[in-house]
Amino acid sequence: MANERSHVMGVAETRLDLDRARRCGFPEVIYGAGKDPEHLLEIVTLQQQAGQPSLITRATPEHAELLTARFPAAIHHPVARTIRIPNGPSQESRGHVAVITAGTTDRPVAEEAAETARWMGCRVTLLMDVGVAGPQRLLNALPEFEQADAVVVVAGMEGALPSVVAGWVACPVIAVPTSVGYGANFQGLAPLLTMLNSCAANVSVVNIDAGFKGGYLAGLIARRTGAVPPHT
Amino acid sequence: MANERSHVMGVAETRLDLDRARRCGFPEVIYGAGKDPEHLLEIVTLQQQAGQPSLITRATPEHAELLTARFPAAIHHPVARTIRIPNGPSQESRGHVAVITAGTTDRPVAEEAAETARWMGCRVTLLMDVGVAGPQRLLNALPEFEQADAVVVVAGMEGALPSVVAGWVACPVIAVPTSVGYGANFQGLAPLLTMLNSCAANVSVVNIDAGFKGGYLAGLIARRTGAVPPHT
Amino acid sequence: MANERSHVMGVAETRLDLDRARRCGFPEVIYGAGKDPEHLLEIVTLQQQAGQPSLITRATPEHAELLTARFPAAIHHPVARTIRIPNGPSQESRGHVAVITAGTTDRPVAEEAAETARWMGCRVTLLMDVGVAGPQRLLNALPEFEQADAVVVVAGMEGALPSVVAGWVACPVIAVPTSVGYGANFQGLAPLLTMLNSCAANVSVVNIDAGFKGGYLAGLIARRTGAVPPHT
Amino acid sequence: MANERSHVMGVAETRLDLDRARRCGFPEVIYGAGKDPEHLLEIVTLQQQAGQPSLITRATPEHAELLTARFPAAIHHPVARTIRIPNGPSQESRGHVAVITAGTTDRPVAEEAAETARWMGCRVTLLMDVGVAGPQRLLNALPEFEQADAVVVVAGMEGALPSVVAGWVACPVIAVPTSVGYGANFQGLAPLLTMLNSCAANVSVVNIDAGFKGGYLAGLIARRTGAVPPHT
Amino acid sequence: MANERSHVMGVAETRLDLDRARRCGFPEVIYGAGKDPEHLLEIVTLQQQAGQPSLITRATPEHAELLTARFPAAIHHPVARTIRIPNGPSQESRGHVAVITAGTTDRPVAEEAAETARWMGCRVTLLMDVGVAGPQRLLNALPEFEQADAVVVVAGMEGALPSVVAGWVACPVIAVPTSVGYGANFQGLAPLLTMLNSCAANVSVVNIDAGFKGGYLAGLIARRTGAVPPHT
Amino acid sequence: MANERSHVMGVAETRLDLDRARRCGFPEVIYGAGKDPEHLLEIVTLQQQAGQPSLITRATPEHAELLTARFPAAIHHPVARTIRIPNGPSQESRGHVAVITAGTTDRPVAEEAAETARWMGCRVTLLMDVGVAGPQRLLNALPEFEQADAVVVVAGMEGALPSVVAGWVACPVIAVPTSVGYGANFQGLAPLLTMLNSCAANVSVVNIDAGFKGGYLAGLIARRTGAVPPHT
Amino acid sequence: MANERSHVMGVAETRLDLDRARRCGFPEVIYGAGKDPEHLLEIVTLQQQAGQPSLITRATPEHAELLTARFPAAIHHPVARTIRIPNGPSQESRGHVAVITAGTTDRPVAEEAAETARWMGCRVTLLMDVGVAGPQRLLNALPEFEQADAVVVVAGMEGALPSVVAGWVACPVIAVPTSVGYGANFQGLAPLLTMLNSCAANVSVVNIDAGFKGGYLAGLIARRTGAVPPHT
Amino acid sequence: MANERSHVMGVAETRLDLDRARRCGFPEVIYGAGKDPEHLLEIVTLQQQAGQPSLITRATPEHAELLTARFPAAIHHPVARTIRIPNGPSQESRGHVAVITAGTTDRPVAEEAAETARWMGCRVTLLMDVGVAGPQRLLNALPEFEQADAVVVVAGMEGALPSVVAGWVACPVIAVPTSVGYGANFQGLAPLLTMLNSCAANVSVVNIDAGFKGGYLAGLIARRTGAVPPHT
Repeated sequence: MANERSHVMGVAETRLDLDRARRCGFPEVIYGAGKDPEHLLEIVTLQQQAGQPSLITRATPEHAELLTARFPAAIHHPVARTIRIPNGPSQESRGHVAVITAGTTDRPVAEEAAETARWMGCRVTLLMDVGVAGPQRLLNALPEFEQADAVVVVAGMEGALPSVVAGWVACPVIAVPTSVGYGANFQGLAPLLTMLNSCAANVSVVNIDAGFKGGYLAGLIARRTGAVPPHT
Repeated sequence: MANERSHVMGVAETRLDLDRARRCGFPEVIYGAGKDPEHLLEIVTLQQQAGQPSLITRATPEHAELLTARFPAAIHHPVARTIRIPNGPSQESRGHVAVITAGTTDRPVAEEAAETARWMGCRVTLLMDVGVAGPQRLLNALPEFEQADAVVVVAGMEGALPSVVAGWVACPVIAVPTSVGYGANFQGLAPLLTMLNSCAANVSVVNIDAGFKGGYLAGLIARRTGAVPPHT
Repeated sequence: MANERSHVMGVAETRLDLDRARRCGFPEVIYGAGKDPEHLLEIVTLQQQAGQPSLITRATPEHAELLTARFPAAIHHPVARTIRIPNGPSQESRGHVAVITAGTTDRPVAEEAAETARWMGCRVTLLMDVGVAGPQRLLNALPEFEQADAVVVVAGMEGALPSVVAGWVACPVIAVPTSVGYGANFQGLAPLLTMLNSCAANVSVVNIDAGFKGGYLAGLIARRTGAVPPHT
Repeated sequence: MANERSHVMGVAETRLDLDRARRCGFPEVIYGAGKDPEHLLEIVTLQQQAGQPSLITRATPEHAELLTARFPAAIHHPVARTIRIPNGPSQESRGHVAVITAGTTDRPVAEEAAETARWMGCRVTLLMDVGVAGPQRLLNALPEFEQADAVVVVAGMEGALPSVVAGWVACPVIAVPTSVGYGANFQGLAPLLTMLNSCAANVSVVNIDAGFKGGYLAGLIARRTGAVPPHT
Repeated sequence: MANERSHVMGVAETRLDLDRARRCGFPEVIYGAGKDPEHLLEIVTLQQQAGQPSLITRATPEHAELLTARFPAAIHHPVARTIRIPNGPSQESRGHVAVITAGTTDRPVAEEAAETARWMGCRVTLLMDVGVAGPQRLLNALPEFEQADAVVVVAGMEGALPSVVAGWVACPVIAVPTSVGYGANFQGLAPLLTMLNSCAANVSVVNIDAGFKGGYLAGLIARRTGAVPPHT
Repeated sequence: MANERSHVMGVAETRLDLDRARRCGFPEVIYGAGKDPEHLLEIVTLQQQAGQPSLITRATPEHAELLTARFPAAIHHPVARTIRIPNGPSQESRGHVAVITAGTTDRPVAEEAAETARWMGCRVTLLMDVGVAGPQRLLNALPEFEQADAVVVVAGMEGALPSVVAGWVACPVIAVPTSVGYGANFQGLAPLLTMLNSCAANVSVVNIDAGFKGGYLAGLIARRTGAVPPHT
Repeated sequence: MANERSHVMGVAETRLDLDRARRCGFPEVIYGAGKDPEHLLEIVTLQQQAGQPSLITRATPEHAELLTARFPAAIHHPVARTIRIPNGPSQESRGHVAVITAGTTDRPVAEEAAETARWMGCRVTLLMDVGVAGPQRLLNALPEFEQADAVVVVAGMEGALPSVVAGWVACPVIAVPTSVGYGANFQGLAPLLTMLNSCAANVSVVNIDAGFKGGYLAGLIARRTGAVPPHT
Repeated sequence: MANERSHVMGVAETRLDLDRARRCGFPEVIYGAGKDPEHLLEIVTLQQQAGQPSLITRATPEHAELLTARFPAAIHHPVARTIRIPNGPSQESRGHVAVITAGTTDRPVAEEAAETARWMGCRVTLLMDVGVAGPQRLLNALPEFEQADAVVVVAGMEGALPSVVAGWVACPVIAVPTSVGYGANFQGLAPLLTMLNSCAANVSVVNIDAGFKGGYLAGLIARRTGAVPPHT
């Protein structure tokens, strides 16, 4: 039995794709959920020794306690459930990402998007409580996001906000549906369908509650666009 | 066999609920689809003889030809696919219904709603091409509908328009999803879910493509509200 | 880090739309679920100071304890999970809303609808245990609701009650499906579809378990209709 | 190639289960759709020679022309799309089946149920245009069906009729949803779910548009029950 | 406040439909779930005083303790979660119901069906562990159910058992899908669809996990059929 | 424009994966649907010149006419809609595949499976009209398939046949759901779910109407197993 | 009637949002489906007179004939069903978009994406027949797309290609599911879900068959990124 | 009451199908979930006394403690939640099964598949962390699985791995979707659909999370194929 078991343990070790930073522009992001804190520490240490910045999503308080003790530069965001650890010489900020959300209940997903974009070295503007049903609020907030390089719109319930925002901006909009709602919301299916059917040509969509992916795509676009004056 | 067959024919005769006008305020509306023109003529004649106005929905050109020949007052609307026939002394118009739609493809459903409300004796304002993605158009159209007694919003695609409209008005909004769209629209399921999940408290919903029902409910509300100054 | 965090806290503060009462006829309703009691108190205090009546839905016992202590006029309804706080000179009651439900399990949703309509200043008749399968009960209850200005019908299971009720009344019926049921009920999908497909022309639908919205729409209609004799 | 092909043809020949009448009480019913008229004639001839009565469902006009020419006793019902051919000494009628439907569009499914029950030797009462929204019609028709041994209720749209009927009778009710409707009807899914969730204990359900199955089950129950006075 | 609350309590009292026994053949069955034991006792006492037998489904141990203490004739079945209380002179058993299930996990639903049929005065044969994948077991059990007046087949997973059983019997089969299964079972949707699409003409279906309804329909049929020799 | 268009044409040319036969054991199969006959001829010629046997699925009569004229060895099966063209020295048959189906309407899918397995060099037994509701037919057919190396079961409607067959054989069963059925069949969803939930451990499933894939997997298994005596 | 009808005609006129080019960077794109050729010509003329380039999607041969006759610079792509009309001084190409698709059946959607990106002034590489099941083809094509500024991946069937492509590139990937497939594909639902669940962080999704939207987003990103060297 | 209850207990006893090993090649596998440890021990003892090897799936720690104490040869795998107990003379290993999975979260399902194949006497190679998004890992692992007799691919999220693996191997691939994922994964529906729509001809599918079934089918194929050189 012993051989068999240890073999099993062997294959279970997560191997880190350290080559990814070169191939894809950013290092591998670590999904914290269900990971043993000591195991997570091991992975992060490997990544830091390779001179790469780290981002952990779905991090627990236990993860945070251990990692912030070991890496003083670590920034734990309890609402976003992220830990990001800069590495190497401080990068200058480049690209501007706006993260907009309708209600306070969507906040954890929005914060995860924001932290991801910050980790990628973008300037982030986070705008909350900008619902469709209170139309003046969006108009008031317009100056804060109309010059962004990419916009992430996080919305549950009926998910109409991305279409409305997209009509005001020239840049790509990443729509993130959330599972906030009840009844015929069907755990985020309603806003997901709304966003996929958006009349606005500049809206693409990611999975329900996928704050990280929304922030990552916006960051990717903003980093590559940031220094260039907008198309005229 | 003869007896059996004629019995079958007997039960197949549609009986008209002439008492409905007294009980529910408006006479029975006749669903034209699949009805033999001569049979339809018979039903309508019965209703007209009882002194009641008639409304036929899903009317075909054949229906229209026959009925407009027999009843000169009949108004056939080919896009709405309706025929309405006033009866008795001309009612004064009462109540104001606004029908708003985003694109020209939703027009048949919107026209059906409008014709229904007109048949009920309401003043109707019909506003088309007021999409979410072109936000100024809605703001420009605001004066035309913000004083209505009831608003019908007809929308396919992502179905976000009712939420946006509802934020600007104090009256009830009846949202009518349409099957206009493709892919993840799922024949109107997407806008239906959007509307059911609307953040706006004054939005209720009817079936996909149910222009008649949207117009009927709006007409019902407007008739009963029309003479009263808006709540302050 | 400090700056970043406090900024985040800044945007998280819910801003109250005090202008809504003027624009839409009724002040903003506060969704209690997940709100910190102290934060809720702050919002309500702001609203009360502006001379507006308050309605809190999905209120917890903790919310109730704090608010009823501070505002003696507050009415907490534990089954409806609502708190309503009148404000200013007592309004005369206007408009009559009937809330009808089939079984006792639908009661929390029905009570939420009733409390909402009471907060809007309507007279409310609440009728429970009026199921489709016991047909005499509905006929017996008819005199209590046939003169209402708007009817809210709350039903889970197969959701047939709104169609049956709508055949007896001339006013609009707001159908509220509930998630009461099991198996092929699919958490309220079955009654939702039943209601959307209702043969009755005067039925519109809101989201599953949306007692507040049902009551709000009925209240809106009843307030605007109440003083006018029914259309003949 | 020849061998292979003829083998294929061999297996394609439908074998008739002539033993079924003994095992299950009634002979095999023949589904006409897609069957070559000559092939159908062959099967029916076999069954008639074995002294068994025949029932063909989904029969085409071509089927009817051929079979009524050959078997003068054949009864073709064009709306039900059935052909039934009695055989042997005339059975006395036994058991009473009521078939009830809300609208005229559900008629083909209702007629198929009725013809099936007639073929089984039951007395059939067919009641049409008895919708939920016109409540008096059902009460007026009550004497015609309350003593039936089994009731088939055929309904599309919201499918509420079986629950309402079942509250008035002591016998089993077979509910047949139809695909009549549009939008959120989803080709009969809405009435199917309504019927499965019926509050009435004496309602069971068959497939969408399954008029034959509804009539067969009702006939089965009525045949076995007919001579017995109802349980008291 | 006091008046309002007590009114609410007033309407919440469940009224018992004591006339049902006369109209529908059996008294009203009481759904125990969520009912306060004292309230339940009150309802049952009323029914017993009217000389009617009682059946409580979804009964808790607390319900059982109280009712069996008060009514010594009460039979509590903990697996079926039912309590039945005979009343009046002992009825002779009439009609034979077979309840068949594939696996031991479906047992609670099957027992609920069996207890319901026993309460209606039928003889019940309960056959478990008769799965489709072990074909001999069904053949061996055939003599025990082929003469039944009605058969209830309870099945989760793929739900194929009713079709297989129905091929062997002449009587109606009531199919009860259960939520036993995982993955693409979708909480009973898979066996529900299987049963609705059954090729066997004598199969009708009730809701997922609706053991009571399955037993009630079978009991209804068997009571009315029982004394009559099977149709030949 | 010329350059752009011709480039487009260039990429549109299907490149044939001639290496596949070496890598995967069988050459690439050609999906005929929508292919221009001349284009198809070109592809097939390439494959034949490389000494590989060809299989075309979803072939039209036009395809057949052209290919059988050019390649005399071609076998066109009009029901299966396949054309297979042997190549090189005649292979000895190896492995035994049984294809079983319940009704004659599933025949095209079953024939496609059979032709595919024949093309792979397997002996094929095709058994039709072996439905679940006529249990003796399956028992009678048992000797014809219980020694097969792999069994393909093709079934629409409720899709129960694979589970029943799988209880009698030791080899893998490939279940192919078909879109044959109506109503709650949902174009094959019902039998698909039935098969995925099969209690039998030796059943795996392919897409709805995927006769080719069912035959290919069975052929793959039978070719590799055929010469070996069954496991004991 | 005259007034009413002409009013209706008035609102039906599509108003062109000529300000959009300034606000959003690109002029309004015209959806051709269902538009009268003369009406389309009118809209396009307006846009051309304003000095803006035009793009018509879902264009019919009739549209093409009329527009290419009037505007010699018009490029009609019959497979993509697009017409694009450059305007003003020729823009230098900027940004590189790769459009990749698995099979030839997805070609119309892919071409629509490509034409849209070309209209936006991007260089486009179109790669077809690069399926997941033939892994070498993708590796061979890698040099043609790994330096693109944005990649559009068009895929039906199981929709796995975007995930595989995204592992090789650093830029954003826009995934476009198509309705190509059958059975459990459910008209594109299967690839849509696959893409939304992609493990790759740089994949976002648009509606089923939304080639235009995929090309527009890729063009938007590429235009803004193109002149900048890739992030290091 | 006593008789009735004990009868119920009687039928509840699971009867073991000891004949299965002869008929189907392998003994009955025991589903542990919900089984009382003592009852399980009884069943296993019966099987062991009949000289058959045992496999228990979904075993709890309590099951394991009892069985490993009684049967020293028992192998408990806590991650797979299986217990297997060899019996009789040690079989030589035959056939090679590869089990491949993308992420560590799918491990329990993969281990269940692996333990099942080991119990059947196959050599098993288990490969984890071989995701689609890191394409080199799969290429590196290719030598370990390309000669397997059957491959099980376990995948959640988008479920694309089976298609990719199947392009590299000649043997059958059994795809096992898992419920790992969130949002539009819908508890495994997304990877299930992906796998059913796979372009690769050699992929068949089992239920979501059905590790046992995946391993059983692969073992069945490998046992029967193992000694034969692969088809050329």
